Amino acid sequence: MSTAVADHLLARKDAVLERLMALLRLPSVSTDPAYAEGMAATRNFLTARLRELGLQKVQLLDGGGQPAVYGEWLGAPGQPTIIIYGHYDVQPPDPLDRWVTPPFEPAIRDGRLYARGASDVKGSTLIAVETVGAFLAAEGKCPVNVKLFLEGEEETGSPSIRRIIERHRDLLAADAMLSADGGRASTSLPTLNTGSRGLCKLEVTLRSAGKDMHSGRYGGAVRNALHEMARLVASQHDAQGRIQVAGFDEDAAPLTERDRADAAALAGDEAAFYASTGALPHGDPAYGVRERVTLRPTIDVNGLWGGYTGAGSKTVIPAEAQAKITARLVPGQDPDRARDCIVAHLRSHCPEGVELFFSPPGGNSPSATLPEGHPLLVAAEAVVRETQGRDPVRARIGGTLPITGIFREMLGIDTLMFGFAMPDEDVHAPNEFFRLSSLEEGLRAWPLLLSRIGQSSAADFAPWRHATQA
Amino acid sequence: MSTAVADHLLARKDAVLERLMALLRLPSVSTDPAYAEGMAATRNFLTARLRELGLQKVQLLDGGGQPAVYGEWLGAPGQPTIIIYGHYDVQPPDPLDRWVTPPFEPAIRDGRLYARGASDVKGSTLIAVETVGAFLAAEGKCPVNVKLFLEGEEETGSPSIRRIIERHRDLLAADAMLSADGGRASTSLPTLNTGSRGLCKLEVTLRSAGKDMHSGRYGGAVRNALHEMARLVASQHDAQGRIQVAGFDEDAAPLTERDRADAAALAGDEAAFYASTGALPHGDPAYGVRERVTLRPTIDVNGLWGGYTGAGSKTVIPAEAQAKITARLVPGQDPDRARDCIVAHLRSHCPEGVELFFSPPGGNSPSATLPEGHPLLVAAEAVVRETQGRDPVRARIGGTLPITGIFREMLGIDTLMFGFAMPDEDVHAPNEFFRLSSLEEGLRAWPLLLSRIGQSSAADFAPWRHATQA
Repeated sequence: MSTAVADHLLARKDAVLERLMALLRLPSVSTDPAYAEGMAATRNFLTARLRELGLQKVQLLDGGGQPAVYGEWLGAPGQPTIIIYGHYDVQPPDPLDRWVTPPFEPAIRDGRLYARGASDVKGSTLIAVETVGAFLAAEGKCPVNVKLFLEGEEETGSPSIRRIIERHRDLLAADAMLSADGGRASTSLPTLNTGSRGLCKLEVTLRSAGKDMHSGRYGGAVRNALHEMARLVASQHDAQGRIQVAGFDEDAAPLTERDRADAAALAGDEAAFYASTGALPHGDPAYGVRERVTLRPTIDVNGLWGGYTGAGSKTVIPAEAQAKITARLVPGQDPDRARDCIVAHLRSHCPEGVELFFSPPGGNSPSATLPEGHPLLVAAEAVVRETQGRDPVRARIGGTLPITGIFREMLGIDTLMFGFAMPDEDVHAPNEFFRLSSLEEGLRAWPLLLSRIGQSSAADFAPWRHATQA
Repeated sequence: MSTAVADHLLARKDAVLERLMALLRLPSVSTDPAYAEGMAATRNFLTARLRELGLQKVQLLDGGGQPAVYGEWLGAPGQPTIIIYGHYDVQPPDPLDRWVTPPFEPAIRDGRLYARGASDVKGSTLIAVETVGAFLAAEGKCPVNVKLFLEGEEETGSPSIRRIIERHRDLLAADAMLSADGGRASTSLPTLNTGSRGLCKLEVTLRSAGKDMHSGRYGGAVRNALHEMARLVASQHDAQGRIQVAGFDEDAAPLTERDRADAAALAGDEAAFYASTGALPHGDPAYGVRERVTLRPTIDVNGLWGGYTGAGSKTVIPAEAQAKITARLVPGQDPDRARDCIVAHLRSHCPEGVELFFSPPGGNSPSATLPEGHPLLVAAEAVVRETQGRDPVRARIGGTLPITGIFREMLGIDTLMFGFAMPDEDVHAPNEFFRLSSLEEGLRAWPLLLSRIGQSSAADFAPWRHATQA
């Protein structure tokens, strides 16, 4: 593969770093309206840069929330059209007093660039943007058609992304998506993200009486909603943490030998994994820790409440208890069926007369997987081999990337995550940083990746496209 | 027994009713500072009345909160000295729009006097006060020495009662206490309250990790504080509601034949008992419903919370969960030991590494019982026989009356509850009422009771006095 564009970029990496620092100086906190000015300034910075690099149709795509920044280059007819995804918003910087240097004053120490958003994900986003610009500057063209899509509300759960896509379905038509988000899984091994867990959610309200009761008058002769909720929650797992919900994981794809080998390669330092949160090891002993958190489904109660929760005591027998539950899903599991299994389990374990009410289904995401043989996967593995001298370990993300599911559902395309963040870079925390070495690696790898994808035609992607929902 | 004083009182019952209505017009809501004026006006009304009736040392006893109203008559040397307890504060009247007539404008309909505080407990309190006055008016003396003690913060949990007693220990020295609070247990049978359940409280914080975790990163491999708390709560009872806490009810006095017969007589309409709250029958099948709610101990989780409880979902694995627990106790159970049993149970059911933190012990009350043969019990049973033509059914209160325990602990005296409220009078609710027939019954019975107690001497009470804590 020609390294000409990569060389062109790397020769200018100081300028890229300066631009990244300028971008990091703009406080684009999407969760807090106080930062509206920083958000707008960031959009201005990006649209100006996209125009400067020679992209066309540079514009803001508005879905009623924070608009996405868009720009395209479609000068390669017959070649694949690739959406390049990044996001320009960042997490709030609090707690401010724990930062060694201020969050929006980028500072370099020991080969690390410290700033809010450096790792998540302005660093990798700028690598992708500059790569496109370098092709246009050095060669006057890109190996693929490019649609840059830089979201502004990833950190707030992408509330308007569906409306943005809906309103700009034609503009966003593409063969596949490359994401600058979803970083690397290891600081020591070359890895490639090939998928993420899905999610299903439910809220359950349990009612054991028409109203709260006084324990002096009723205590001993009535059901207590919190006792009943506790029994239901406890029934979902055994003492080892194995899920006891009938049917729930029946469709979960069994782990392949490759899955287990990849998980073993990424097992890492389990003691450090637990020590970082003071958590206690737990879960199905048939699987290793890395397998449990990436390749196996889970059910977690995320919130539970009922009765009196104020100061002091109140001798009430609560009539109602509530719980928020989410499940992480793996390939093979249908989110609606997973939810139905949980609902059925809770209903079947609920004593007669105790009522359960469930939130309407919605907001679920299936697990995402880049299938074996997909041109993006083939290209990316080749690039990792070339740049790092060995096959990448395939990693799956234990979390859920709703974007991936939404683009697949609405535009029929799969996503390859090709971000350069590392797992230890304190994203969402004080002193977030991005390695300067990662910047360099990204500037080398992204041009190679686009070149490699350009060796396929648009037609090569056709068999991999999914049906979209109307 | 002479009915002269009762006859004197009953001949003036219209005037008593008018005074009760005047008292009910004063909005003495102790829980809400907005009613400070109503509280003060009520104290003025009562101190004026006590002086008018010829009581001495009429004064306010201040413990830093709402003062108690006090007055005494000690003109019967050698006779027993009896504290007569009532309370002048009432519950808030909300929801106001559900009252047929305004809560502080007493109204008579169908032989019932509607007003906030009519049943709880200004009606019975005034009966007691007027009884003392009638003795002094009709006979120039009382059959016993009387210390009227009218509390002003019963509805707020008596926060300063201990300080009041502490500051006025000598003034309050007595042989026993008669309470106008703690009404009758049945609308159809003569009953006598002989005791109440005790209470112990604890709060438990469970910690399974140093901080909340993201279920995408940790889900499947760590303990979830809410799952662990649910298992602990569920472990306290079996599916029938039988307590599973080792040792907890070991010291509970077994039910006697008389206990069971009294409970059976008061079983009442169980369907109506449950229908009133929409609750589901539950609990130890070895005991009847009335037994379960008055004669057997309970453990109830009154509040439980942890994790994310706001709108929408948050994929957090909570590191901490909290629960408030109270237990109702019966004769034989020591509150500290009961609490220790619950703590030991939770600790022994808690997986290694999961931490439990308990609130410091405090605010516990033992179960109260007026012992067989106590002069107050003997006198009261005789009065019920005389006025109602049959032996009363002995009833125990399922709730806890901290006053009883505090007077026993601090002054060494037992309490007989001799209130005339009925269990269906909507106390603490809109349209609270007191039966005019109950007013008449009270005005007849209280003089007889004081006369009957006057047949004992102070010396007769000596064996029944308890040691007090220094």
